Amino acid sequence: MRMSKLLGERFKNPPADATAKSHIFLSRAGYIKQVGGGIFTLLPPAERISKKIQAIIREEMDAVGGQECLFPVVMPRELWDMSGRYSSIGQEMMRFKDRGGHDLVIGMTHEEASVHAAMDTIKSYDQLPFMIYQIQTKVRDEARPRAGLIRVREFLMKDAYSFHETQEDLEEYYKKLYDAYFKIYRRMGLKKVIAVHSDGGMMGGKVADEFQLLTEIGEDTIIICPDCDTASNIDVATSVMDENDHIFGVKQEVFTGEAKSIDEVCSNLNKKPSQVCKAVCYAVIGDEKRVVIAFLRGDKEVNEAKLKLLVGGDIAIKNLEDSGLVKGNIGCVDLSVEGAEIYFDKSLEGLESFVTGANKEGFHYQGVSISRDVKPEKFVDISKVSEGERCPKCGAKLLVKKGIEIGNIFQLGTKYTKSMGMQVHDKDGNLFNPIMGCYGIGIGRNIAAIAEENSDEKGLVWPMSVAPWHIYLCPLRMDDEKVREAAEKLYKKLVAENFEVLYDDRNASAGLKLTDSELMGIPVRIVISPKTLENGTLEITIRATGEKIFVSEQNLSKKLDELIVY
Amino acid sequence: MRMSKLLGERFKNPPADATAKSHIFLSRAGYIKQVGGGIFTLLPPAERISKKIQAIIREEMDAVGGQECLFPVVMPRELWDMSGRYSSIGQEMMRFKDRGGHDLVIGMTHEEASVHAAMDTIKSYDQLPFMIYQIQTKVRDEARPRAGLIRVREFLMKDAYSFHETQEDLEEYYKKLYDAYFKIYRRMGLKKVIAVHSDGGMMGGKVADEFQLLTEIGEDTIIICPDCDTASNIDVATSVMDENDHIFGVKQEVFTGEAKSIDEVCSNLNKKPSQVCKAVCYAVIGDEKRVVIAFLRGDKEVNEAKLKLLVGGDIAIKNLEDSGLVKGNIGCVDLSVEGAEIYFDKSLEGLESFVTGANKEGFHYQGVSISRDVKPEKFVDISKVSEGERCPKCGAKLLVKKGIEIGNIFQLGTKYTKSMGMQVHDKDGNLFNPIMGCYGIGIGRNIAAIAEENSDEKGLVWPMSVAPWHIYLCPLRMDDEKVREAAEKLYKKLVAENFEVLYDDRNASAGLKLTDSELMGIPVRIVISPKTLENGTLEITIRATGEKIFVSEQNLSKKLDELIVY
Repeated sequence: MRMSKLLGERFKNPPADATAKSHIFLSRAGYIKQVGGGIFTLLPPAERISKKIQAIIREEMDAVGGQECLFPVVMPRELWDMSGRYSSIGQEMMRFKDRGGHDLVIGMTHEEASVHAAMDTIKSYDQLPFMIYQIQTKVRDEARPRAGLIRVREFLMKDAYSFHETQEDLEEYYKKLYDAYFKIYRRMGLKKVIAVHSDGGMMGGKVADEFQLLTEIGEDTIIICPDCDTASNIDVATSVMDENDHIFGVKQEVFTGEAKSIDEVCSNLNKKPSQVCKAVCYAVIGDEKRVVIAFLRGDKEVNEAKLKLLVGGDIAIKNLEDSGLVKGNIGCVDLSVEGAEIYFDKSLEGLESFVTGANKEGFHYQGVSISRDVKPEKFVDISKVSEGERCPKCGAKLLVKKGIEIGNIFQLGTKYTKSMGMQVHDKDGNLFNPIMGCYGIGIGRNIAAIAEENSDEKGLVWPMSVAPWHIYLCPLRMDDEKVREAAEKLYKKLVAENFEVLYDDRNASAGLKLTDSELMGIPVRIVISPKTLENGTLEITIRATGEKIFVSEQNLSKKLDELIVY
Repeated sequence: MRMSKLLGERFKNPPADATAKSHIFLSRAGYIKQVGGGIFTLLPPAERISKKIQAIIREEMDAVGGQECLFPVVMPRELWDMSGRYSSIGQEMMRFKDRGGHDLVIGMTHEEASVHAAMDTIKSYDQLPFMIYQIQTKVRDEARPRAGLIRVREFLMKDAYSFHETQEDLEEYYKKLYDAYFKIYRRMGLKKVIAVHSDGGMMGGKVADEFQLLTEIGEDTIIICPDCDTASNIDVATSVMDENDHIFGVKQEVFTGEAKSIDEVCSNLNKKPSQVCKAVCYAVIGDEKRVVIAFLRGDKEVNEAKLKLLVGGDIAIKNLEDSGLVKGNIGCVDLSVEGAEIYFDKSLEGLESFVTGANKEGFHYQGVSISRDVKPEKFVDISKVSEGERCPKCGAKLLVKKGIEIGNIFQLGTKYTKSMGMQVHDKDGNLFNPIMGCYGIGIGRNIAAIAEENSDEKGLVWPMSVAPWHIYLCPLRMDDEKVREAAEKLYKKLVAENFEVLYDDRNASAGLKLTDSELMGIPVRIVISPKTLENGTLEITIRATGEKIFVSEQNLSKKLDELIVY
């Protein structure tokens, strides 16, 4: 490819809103161009990377027996009514009507479509297990698209669906996919990837794992045990907390005036947040009558994912003043709010001398004992694990890390085959609903993840296996007849030898060309200049290490064969 | 691939609404499954064909210097407002709002997106010409989806956009793409393809060509000159008609009673349709005040595409009784309808003794002379060419054929670069709007077109280059231990030698297996049976010809190498 014709400009400055390295460099280096909120065009270099990632994924899916098909982007509402997700999924799903007034949706995932494809054609147990997959556009109406390709509204995704007779068979297959995903990441050059237990989310499965790239800019929080390898998304992570001290206080009402927040109350009463019980109030979305109040220790935070599971529905923080509660003075002693569902976090267990609101303006209680003055029926786990709490498996101190989710796999059970009525005969002729697994990996987000992990202050540093081109052929002084002739000749030779070459044939300054080559992150740069011609050697620079290698043109191909391996 | 695990069932009966061969066989043979109106899932065999077609197209696009990128399926309204097409395109475009209430569209084509990608990055004439292309999902809300993959609402399409400094440069490039398209069709195994002049449609270009596969089930009508090679879509085709006889009649009013249609009037007055002048009335869509009346000879039909161009807007047939006209008695003598725009077709020129409505219930005129009694200011070409009229170039008698449009190319001019404000510097530093070309080819429709042209009464007959698999390995009597062992061994050997094999490992009857192999249309079938084992030869059958070849296992690979070429 000649740089003079390549679509895409290099920029000095990143987009105004860019903070993630991948967003900054993919924009600056001419890989992506934003079309709308969370909507991008992949310019030719990014499309080349995308194709290479797709090829790796296809090979690994085919290796575990996957069959590629293609489900539609646009689907009739009826298909999503069958599973019940037309109503259970909220604003994330794009919906519209066709010219005849029929409801259509844009696929954000394809469980329904996969069951539709398999129904009536798969009839017997001996056709199981099988796995179908596709690489297809998905659209999700994200509330807050961000960070370039990391959180978008439209993206290309490989999604796979497997069908099984027994849970054991699913689990065996699930393990194969788990391993295949690590193979895919390794082949793409991603190193800091860990598998993390997660919840099924809108897929509705029970067992699920996410693949997370550990990075500071990640928006997911992961709890990792450094000793026993357990890693979980904070949404599902549990921990063993140090026990509270079980020392009983004397309950008394105290005037706290304007002190409302944990910090203010602590400072007013000279307590630590761990000596306070705080309240967080929620509404249940779609059911106006339900009100939820969560009590937890003042140093802990509500884990809304866990609370949602307990509540059995979506929740949103709500001001409950119209229920007679006083904001900043809500407490768990003698609380009475009609119909409220009250949950006590396990962090309160054994806390026998704490501060909590007195449910009236300006007052708190102190010296409250949970077992004496509140007597909860039970304690539940509704708080986020904090760094330093202990691993429930091995007792080691847990670490809190940030990650980007770059893949996920789910054990779906029979949620879709049952609701949609897919039945298969077992060997005795009895009908059963196949058990499903599903397996997703987003192409664009993985381009960004690779860019996050493989960049330096000068720009991108693509791993060989996904680099848009392997060689950046960089003649300096194209105004010099000899340089130009040598470069043209070498370009043609390399292309004829099937090397992937980006040829910077521009009549531009050496500084600009070298800077662009580094910004774009092509792994191997070859410089031709009046000086290299004089010396009879070419100058190779390895982008990742900066290492320079001087080689005669005669030995060039051999050297490139050595360098370009993946 | 093992048939026992292949997703997709073979059916005896076609879908109830299927009439096209491709629709019937692609459904019956397990290639496609309908999800909604004009919306299909491509099952694994069809996806394999799709991938092969895509690979051929990519090679030919890359060969003419194309750069692949990927534009989004969903785009913000603003992009389509820039070109004016958000309002000029009607119900065919799917529109909806996101959670923030912003208008979005689903791309039915990507001229706007291509200009958006090139704007601000292409700044100088020496970056021209260049061509970008993508293979991406398109959605069009067709009023009448039909014939399986032939007319759908969602499809995968290769669309390419080229940018040029001069019209000459565009024309040179356009010719390259024209040739590339024929190469693509030839490589895919399509033979009866012709290029046909067409109009720009919603793309808005002046010069355009369609590639048509000639077939009886085509929905496009093509006018072909057998002598000089001129071929045009009937929408733009012109002809020279035999001159009318210029014999003047005597005008008189006659009672025709209930006779309204051309047939009734002709039979009533003992005339031929070519001796009658008929009227067709239209409303202009989006402009309620405008009314259009077209007069033409009774044996001719209105060419609405031509009339639209004259009218400068979309039109729809309208009953004009509320304008005082009498249906079936409308005539061109002394017609007065306020504000009506009246067009006279060239078929009326020299017609000096004809029948036309008398504009009152129950009466017509006969003996009307166009030049004496009507005196039109001018005649225009608003009728469809009929078989037997003469080629305007060489005078030969024209033929009327049916075709499926399997590709199209357009010279767009500066419609998009001008409206969207894309400017580039010429060598003197002056700004200009680049001239564009665009080039489309639908993947799914080409699968169907290949199936139309390559099938017989037994089913599909895929050309080698696009066949989902090359070999159908067909053991008969899988219950015979020796047959099963030999088949398994041969399957593994062929796969190891990189042959593409569909292995019918089912424990099914010989009849079913042979029938399925023919229905699915895999080019080469290898039968293993107790008999072939006994004879020490394998039986190869060529799907296209039925030819049988007997070969020892030792010589099999060599024979297959000879047979599988493309």
